[in-house]
Amino acid sequence: MANFRIREAKREDCAEILGLIKELAEYEKMPDSVQMTVEVLQRDGFGEKPLYSSLVAEELDKDGATIPGKLLAYALYYDIYSTWEGRCIYLEDLCVTPDHRNKGIGSALFKRVAQICVEEGCKRLQWAVLAWNSEAIKFYKKFGGINMTDKEEWNVYRIEREAMNKIVQ
Amino acid sequence: MANFRIREAKREDCAEILGLIKELAEYEKMPDSVQMTVEVLQRDGFGEKPLYSSLVAEELDKDGATIPGKLLAYALYYDIYSTWEGRCIYLEDLCVTPDHRNKGIGSALFKRVAQICVEEGCKRLQWAVLAWNSEAIKFYKKFGGINMTDKEEWNVYRIEREAMNKIVQ
Repeated sequence: MANFRIREAKREDCAEILGLIKELAEYEKMPDSVQMTVEVLQRDGFGEKPLYSSLVAEELDKDGATIPGKLLAYALYYDIYSTWEGRCIYLEDLCVTPDHRNKGIGSALFKRVAQICVEEGCKRLQWAVLAWNSEAIKFYKKFGGINMTDKEEWNVYRIEREAMNKIVQ
Repeated sequence: MANFRIREAKREDCAEILGLIKELAEYEKMPDSVQMTVEVLQRDGFGEKPLYSSLVAEELDKDGATIPGKLLAYALYYDIYSTWEGRCIYLEDLCVTPDHRNKGIGSALFKRVAQICVEEGCKRLQWAVLAWNSEAIKFYKKFGGINMTDKEEWNVYRIEREAMNKIVQ
Protein backbone atom coordinates (compact mmCIF):
# COMPACT_ATOMS: atom_id res chain seq x y z
CA MET A 1 0.00 0.00 0.00
CA ALA A 2 1.50 3.27 -1.13
CA ASN A 3 1.27 6.32 1.04
CA PHE A 4 -0.53 8.83 -1.15
CA ARG A 5 -3.60 10.99 -1.40
CA ILE A 6 -5.66 12.10 -4.34
CA ARG A 7 -6.80 15.67 -4.78
CA GLU A 8 -7.93 18.02 -7.53
CA ALA A 9 -5.07 19.54 -9.48
CA LYS A 10 -4.15 23.20 -8.96
CA ARG A 11 -2.62 25.74 -11.30
CA GLU A 12 0.74 25.30 -9.53
CA ASP A 13 0.79 21.59 -10.42
CA CYS A 14 0.89 22.21 -14.18
CA ALA A 15 4.69 22.08 -14.57
CA GLU A 16 4.78 18.70 -12.84
CA ILE A 17 1.74 17.43 -14.75
CA LEU A 18 3.45 18.40 -18.00
CA GLY A 19 6.44 16.31 -16.92
CA LEU A 20 4.11 13.34 -16.46
CA ILE A 21 2.40 14.02 -19.83
CA LYS A 22 5.84 13.81 -21.46
CA GLU A 23 6.61 10.57 -19.61
CA LEU A 24 3.35 9.09 -20.87
CA ALA A 25 4.09 10.15 -24.46
CA GLU A 26 7.48 8.47 -24.22
CA TYR A 27 5.84 5.32 -22.91
CA GLU A 28 3.37 5.51 -25.81
CA LYS A 29 6.35 5.79 -28.19
CA MET A 30 5.39 9.27 -29.43
CA PRO A 31 7.60 11.61 -27.39
CA ASP A 32 7.79 14.22 -30.16
CA SER A 33 4.01 14.66 -30.24
CA VAL A 34 3.86 16.83 -27.12
CA GLN A 35 3.41 20.44 -28.22
CA MET A 36 2.00 21.45 -24.84
CA THR A 37 3.52 24.15 -22.61
CA VAL A 38 2.98 24.92 -18.93
CA GLU A 39 1.34 28.23 -19.83
CA VAL A 40 -1.23 26.63 -22.16
CA LEU A 41 -1.99 23.87 -19.64
CA GLN A 42 -2.54 26.51 -16.94
CA ARG A 43 -4.74 28.70 -19.11
CA ASP A 44 -6.85 25.82 -20.43
CA GLY A 45 -7.40 24.13 -17.09
CA PHE A 46 -7.56 27.08 -14.71
CA GLY A 47 -8.53 30.08 -16.81
CA GLU A 48 -11.90 31.67 -17.54
CA LYS A 49 -13.20 28.76 -19.58
CA PRO A 50 -11.72 25.50 -18.27
CA LEU A 51 -11.39 22.87 -20.98
CA TYR A 52 -10.44 20.01 -18.69
CA SER A 53 -10.35 18.83 -15.08
CA SER A 54 -7.48 16.98 -13.47
CA LEU A 55 -6.79 14.88 -10.40
CA VAL A 56 -3.33 14.22 -9.02
CA ALA A 57 -1.88 11.74 -6.55
CA GLU A 58 0.79 13.11 -4.25
CA GLU A 59 3.16 11.27 -2.00
CA LEU A 60 2.84 11.50 1.78
CA ASP A 61 5.66 11.19 4.29
CA LYS A 62 5.44 8.85 7.28
CA ASP A 63 3.54 11.49 9.25
CA GLY A 64 0.93 11.82 6.50
CA ALA A 65 2.21 15.21 5.30
CA THR A 66 2.48 15.82 1.55
CA ILE A 67 5.91 15.88 -0.02
CA PRO A 68 6.11 18.97 -2.26
CA GLY A 69 7.16 18.45 -5.84
CA LYS A 70 6.33 14.74 -5.76
CA LEU A 71 3.30 14.04 -7.89
CA LEU A 72 3.02 10.31 -8.46
CA ALA A 73 0.19 10.28 -10.97
CA TYR A 74 -2.44 12.34 -12.74
CA ALA A 75 -5.76 11.82 -14.47
CA LEU A 76 -7.09 14.37 -16.93
CA TYR A 77 -10.71 14.32 -18.09
CA TYR A 78 -13.46 16.48 -19.59
CA ASP A 79 -17.12 16.45 -20.54
CA ILE A 80 -18.21 14.93 -23.83
CA TYR A 81 -21.72 14.58 -25.19
CA SER A 82 -23.56 11.57 -26.54
CA THR A 83 -26.67 12.32 -28.59
CA TRP A 84 -27.99 8.97 -27.32
CA GLU A 85 -27.14 9.24 -23.62
CA GLY A 86 -26.40 12.91 -22.89
CA ARG A 87 -23.45 14.13 -20.88
CA CYS A 88 -20.56 11.68 -20.48
CA ILE A 89 -16.97 11.96 -19.33
CA TYR A 90 -13.85 11.27 -21.38
CA LEU A 91 -10.67 10.21 -19.60
CA GLU A 92 -7.93 11.66 -21.78
CA ASP A 93 -4.96 10.50 -19.71
CA LEU A 94 -4.35 8.33 -16.67
CA CYS A 95 -0.68 7.97 -15.85
CA VAL A 96 1.29 6.73 -12.86
CA THR A 97 4.99 7.45 -12.84
CA PRO A 98 6.88 4.15 -13.50
CA ASP A 99 8.50 3.86 -10.05
CA HIS A 100 5.10 3.93 -8.35
CA ARG A 101 3.06 1.49 -10.41
CA ASN A 102 1.26 -1.51 -8.90
CA LYS A 103 0.59 0.27 -5.63
CA GLY A 104 -3.08 0.98 -6.21
CA ILE A 105 -2.58 4.61 -7.24
CA GLY A 106 -3.98 4.18 -10.78
CA SER A 107 -6.96 2.24 -9.45
CA ALA A 108 -7.68 4.92 -6.87
CA LEU A 109 -7.58 7.60 -9.59
CA PHE A 110 -9.78 5.60 -11.96
CA LYS A 111 -12.30 4.92 -9.18
CA ARG A 112 -12.42 8.60 -8.31
CA VAL A 113 -13.18 9.50 -11.93
CA ALA A 114 -15.94 6.83 -12.01
CA GLN A 115 -17.31 8.31 -8.78
CA ILE A 116 -17.42 11.76 -10.40
CA CYS A 117 -19.30 10.24 -13.37
CA VAL A 118 -21.93 8.79 -11.05
CA GLU A 119 -22.25 12.00 -9.02
CA GLU A 120 -22.67 14.06 -12.19
CA GLY A 121 -25.24 11.70 -13.67
CA CYS A 122 -23.03 10.65 -16.60
CA LYS A 123 -23.89 7.30 -18.13
CA ARG A 124 -20.57 6.56 -19.81
CA LEU A 125 -16.92 6.98 -19.06
CA GLN A 126 -14.89 6.68 -22.26
CA TRP A 127 -11.23 6.63 -23.17
CA ALA A 128 -8.84 5.30 -25.82
CA VAL A 129 -6.03 2.81 -25.38
CA LEU A 130 -3.29 1.57 -27.68
CA ALA A 131 -3.95 -2.06 -28.65
CA TRP A 132 -0.35 -3.09 -27.82
CA ASN A 133 -0.57 -1.66 -24.31
CA SER A 134 -1.57 -4.92 -22.66
CA GLU A 135 -0.75 -3.66 -19.18
CA ALA A 136 -3.24 -0.80 -19.51
CA ILE A 137 -5.86 -3.06 -21.11
CA LYS A 138 -5.58 -5.54 -18.23
CA PHE A 139 -6.03 -2.63 -15.82
CA TYR A 140 -9.12 -1.32 -17.62
CA LYS A 141 -10.73 -4.74 -17.99
CA LYS A 142 -10.54 -5.18 -14.22
CA PHE A 143 -13.02 -2.28 -13.98
CA GLY A 144 -15.38 -3.63 -16.64
CA GLY A 145 -13.86 -1.70 -19.55
CA ILE A 146 -15.48 -2.68 -22.85
CA ASN A 147 -13.51 -2.45 -26.10
CA MET A 148 -16.02 -0.67 -28.37
CA THR A 149 -13.70 -1.06 -31.37
CA ASP A 150 -14.03 -4.83 -30.96
CA LYS A 151 -17.66 -4.87 -29.90
CA GLU A 152 -19.21 -2.48 -32.41
CA GLU A 153 -16.30 -1.70 -34.75
CA TRP A 154 -15.98 1.96 -33.76
CA ASN A 155 -12.79 3.32 -35.30
CA VAL A 156 -11.13 6.58 -34.30
CA TYR A 157 -10.74 9.10 -37.13
CA ARG A 158 -9.02 12.45 -37.31
CA ILE A 159 -7.95 15.24 -39.61
CA GLU A 160 -5.01 17.38 -38.66
CA ARG A 161 -4.09 20.95 -39.46
CA GLU A 162 -2.76 20.36 -42.96
CA ALA A 163 -5.97 18.64 -44.07
CA MET A 164 -8.05 21.38 -42.47
CA ASN A 165 -6.11 24.07 -44.28
CA LYS A 166 -6.81 22.35 -47.60
CA ILE A 167 -10.52 22.11 -46.80
CA VAL A 168 -10.92 25.77 -45.90
CA GLN A 169 -8.86 27.20 -48.75
CA MET B 1 -26.84 21.25 -56.38
CA ALA B 2 -29.32 21.26 -53.53
CA ASN B 3 -30.97 24.44 -52.42
CA PHE B 4 -29.99 24.74 -48.80
CA ARG B 5 -28.25 26.91 -46.28
CA ILE B 6 -26.26 26.09 -43.18
CA ARG B 7 -26.77 27.95 -39.92
CA GLU B 8 -26.21 27.46 -36.20
CA ALA B 9 -28.91 25.40 -34.54
CA LYS B 10 -31.44 27.12 -32.27
CA ARG B 11 -33.35 25.82 -29.25
CA GLU B 12 -36.46 25.49 -31.43
CA ASP B 13 -34.65 23.05 -33.75
CA CYS B 14 -34.15 20.43 -31.02
CA ALA B 15 -37.29 18.39 -31.77
CA GLU B 16 -36.28 18.09 -35.43
CA ILE B 17 -32.65 17.37 -34.54
CA LEU B 18 -33.81 14.59 -32.23
CA GLY B 19 -35.74 13.12 -35.16
CA LEU B 20 -32.51 13.10 -37.18
CA ILE B 21 -30.56 11.60 -34.24
CA LYS B 22 -33.06 8.73 -34.22
CA GLU B 23 -32.73 8.30 -37.99
CA LEU B 24 -28.95 8.06 -37.61
CA ALA B 25 -29.25 5.49 -34.78
CA GLU B 26 -31.49 3.37 -37.02
CA TYR B 27 -28.97 3.63 -39.85
CA GLU B 28 -26.25 2.58 -37.37
CA LYS B 29 -28.42 -0.41 -36.41
CA MET B 30 -28.85 0.70 -32.79
CA PRO B 31 -32.27 2.38 -32.74
CA ASP B 32 -32.96 1.41 -29.11
CA SER B 33 -29.86 3.20 -27.86
CA VAL B 34 -31.39 6.68 -28.05
CA GLN B 35 -32.33 7.74 -24.51
CA MET B 36 -32.33 11.43 -25.46
CA THR B 37 -35.35 13.73 -25.08
CA VAL B 38 -36.07 17.15 -26.58
CA GLU B 39 -35.91 18.74 -23.12
CA VAL B 40 -32.45 17.34 -22.37
CA LEU B 41 -31.16 18.30 -25.80
CA GLN B 42 -32.45 21.84 -25.29
CA ARG B 43 -31.01 22.19 -21.79
CA ASP B 44 -27.60 20.75 -22.73
CA GLY B 45 -27.17 22.77 -25.91
CA PHE B 46 -28.86 26.05 -25.05
CA GLY B 47 -28.86 26.27 -21.25
CA GLU B 48 -26.48 27.96 -18.84
CA LYS B 49 -23.59 25.60 -19.52
CA PRO B 50 -23.73 24.41 -23.15
CA LEU B 51 -22.22 20.97 -23.58
CA TYR B 52 -22.31 20.95 -27.37
CA SER B 53 -22.70 23.12 -30.50
CA SER B 54 -24.74 22.22 -33.54
CA LEU B 55 -25.12 23.26 -37.15
CA VAL B 56 -28.15 22.48 -39.29
CA ALA B 57 -28.88 22.56 -43.01
CA GLU B 58 -32.33 23.79 -43.94
CA GLU B 59 -34.09 23.59 -47.28
CA LEU B 60 -34.77 26.73 -49.30
CA ASP B 61 -37.69 27.25 -51.68
CA LYS B 62 -37.13 28.56 -55.22
CA ASP B 63 -37.14 32.14 -53.95
CA GLY B 64 -34.40 31.34 -51.44
CA ALA B 65 -36.73 31.44 -48.43
CA THR B 66 -36.36 28.75 -45.78
CA ILE B 67 -38.99 26.04 -45.59
CA PRO B 68 -40.02 25.70 -41.93
CA GLY B 69 -39.84 22.26 -40.39
CA LYS B 70 -37.51 20.96 -43.09
CA LEU B 71 -34.09 20.33 -41.62
CA LEU B 72 -32.05 18.27 -44.08
CA ALA B 73 -29.01 17.58 -41.92
CA TYR B 74 -27.24 18.37 -38.69
CA ALA B 75 -23.73 18.27 -37.28
CA LEU B 76 -23.13 18.18 -33.53
CA TYR B 77 -19.71 18.86 -32.03
CA TYR B 78 -17.92 19.94 -28.84
CA ASP B 79 -14.51 20.82 -27.44
CA ILE B 80 -12.16 18.08 -26.39
CA TYR B 81 -8.64 18.42 -25.01
CA SER B 82 -5.42 16.79 -26.09
CA THR B 83 -2.58 16.94 -23.56
CA TRP B 84 -0.25 16.94 -26.57
CA GLU B 85 -1.94 19.53 -28.80
CA GLY B 86 -4.39 21.48 -26.59
CA ARG B 87 -7.94 22.28 -27.56
CA CYS B 88 -9.44 20.15 -30.35
CA ILE B 89 -12.96 19.57 -31.66
CA TYR B 90 -14.88 16.31 -31.65
CA LEU B 91 -17.58 15.76 -34.26
CA GLU B 92 -20.10 13.57 -32.47
CA ASP B 93 -22.64 13.30 -35.30
CA LEU B 94 -22.90 14.32 -38.94
CA CYS B 95 -26.11 13.16 -40.56
CA VAL B 96 -27.96 13.99 -43.77
CA THR B 97 -31.52 12.71 -44.09
CA PRO B 98 -31.51 9.83 -46.63
CA ASP B 99 -33.58 11.62 -49.31
CA HIS B 100 -31.06 14.45 -49.49
CA ARG B 101 -27.76 12.64 -49.63
CA ASN B 102 -25.21 13.17 -52.43
CA LYS B 103 -26.17 16.80 -52.88
CA GLY B 104 -23.17 18.32 -51.14
CA ILE B 105 -24.96 19.00 -47.86
CA GLY B 106 -22.76 16.72 -45.74
CA SER B 107 -19.62 18.13 -47.34
CA ALA B 108 -20.77 21.68 -46.68
CA LEU B 109 -21.41 20.82 -43.02
CA PHE B 110 -18.07 19.04 -42.61
CA LYS B 111 -16.23 21.96 -44.22
CA ARG B 112 -17.95 24.41 -41.91
CA VAL B 113 -16.85 22.40 -38.85
CA ALA B 114 -13.27 22.30 -40.22
CA GLN B 115 -13.48 26.08 -40.73
CA ILE B 116 -14.53 26.51 -37.07
CA CYS B 117 -11.54 24.36 -36.01
CA VAL B 118 -9.17 26.60 -37.92
CA GLU B 119 -10.78 29.80 -36.63
CA GLU B 120 -10.60 28.56 -33.04
CA GLY B 121 -6.98 27.45 -33.36
CA CYS B 122 -7.74 23.73 -32.91
CA LYS B 123 -5.16 21.37 -34.34
CA ARG B 124 -7.33 18.28 -34.66
CA LEU B 125 -10.86 17.43 -35.64
CA GLN B 126 -11.74 13.95 -34.40
CA TRP B 127 -14.69 11.60 -34.73
CA ALA B 128 -15.56 7.90 -34.70
CA VAL B 129 -16.98 5.82 -37.53
CA LEU B 130 -18.29 2.27 -37.71
CA ALA B 131 -15.88 0.12 -39.74
CA TRP B 132 -18.74 -1.32 -41.85
CA ASN B 133 -20.01 2.14 -42.82
CA SER B 134 -18.07 2.32 -46.08
CA GLU B 135 -20.13 5.20 -47.41
CA ALA B 136 -19.18 7.38 -44.44
CA ILE B 137 -15.53 6.25 -44.60
CA LYS B 138 -15.34 7.18 -48.30
CA PHE B 139 -16.80 10.57 -47.42
CA TYR B 140 -14.27 11.19 -44.62
CA LYS B 141 -11.28 10.00 -46.64
CA LYS B 142 -12.12 12.61 -49.29
CA PHE B 143 -11.30 15.23 -46.68
CA GLY B 144 -8.05 13.61 -45.54
CA GLY B 145 -9.55 11.63 -42.67
CA ILE B 146 -6.96 9.36 -41.06
CA ASN B 147 -8.02 6.12 -39.38
CA MET B 148 -6.11 6.31 -36.09
CA THR B 149 -7.26 2.82 -35.11
CA ASP B 150 -5.42 1.51 -38.18
CA LYS B 151 -2.48 3.90 -38.01
CA GLU B 152 -1.62 3.79 -34.30
CA GLU B 153 -3.95 1.07 -32.98
CA TRP B 154 -6.06 3.42 -30.84
CA ASN B 155 -9.08 1.47 -29.60
CA VAL B 156 -12.19 3.04 -28.09
CA TYR B 157 -12.99 1.87 -24.54
CA ARG B 158 -15.91 2.54 -22.26
CA ILE B 159 -17.54 1.61 -19.00
CA GLU B 160 -21.27 2.04 -18.61
CA ARG B 161 -23.47 2.71 -15.61
CA GLU B 162 -23.56 -0.82 -14.26
CA ALA B 163 -19.75 -1.08 -14.16
CA MET B 164 -19.53 2.38 -12.56
CA ASN B 165 -21.98 1.40 -9.85
CA LYS B 166 -19.86 -1.64 -9.01
CA ILE B 167 -16.72 0.50 -8.82
CA VAL B 168 -18.18 3.09 -6.47
CA GLN B 169 -19.97 0.67 -4.12
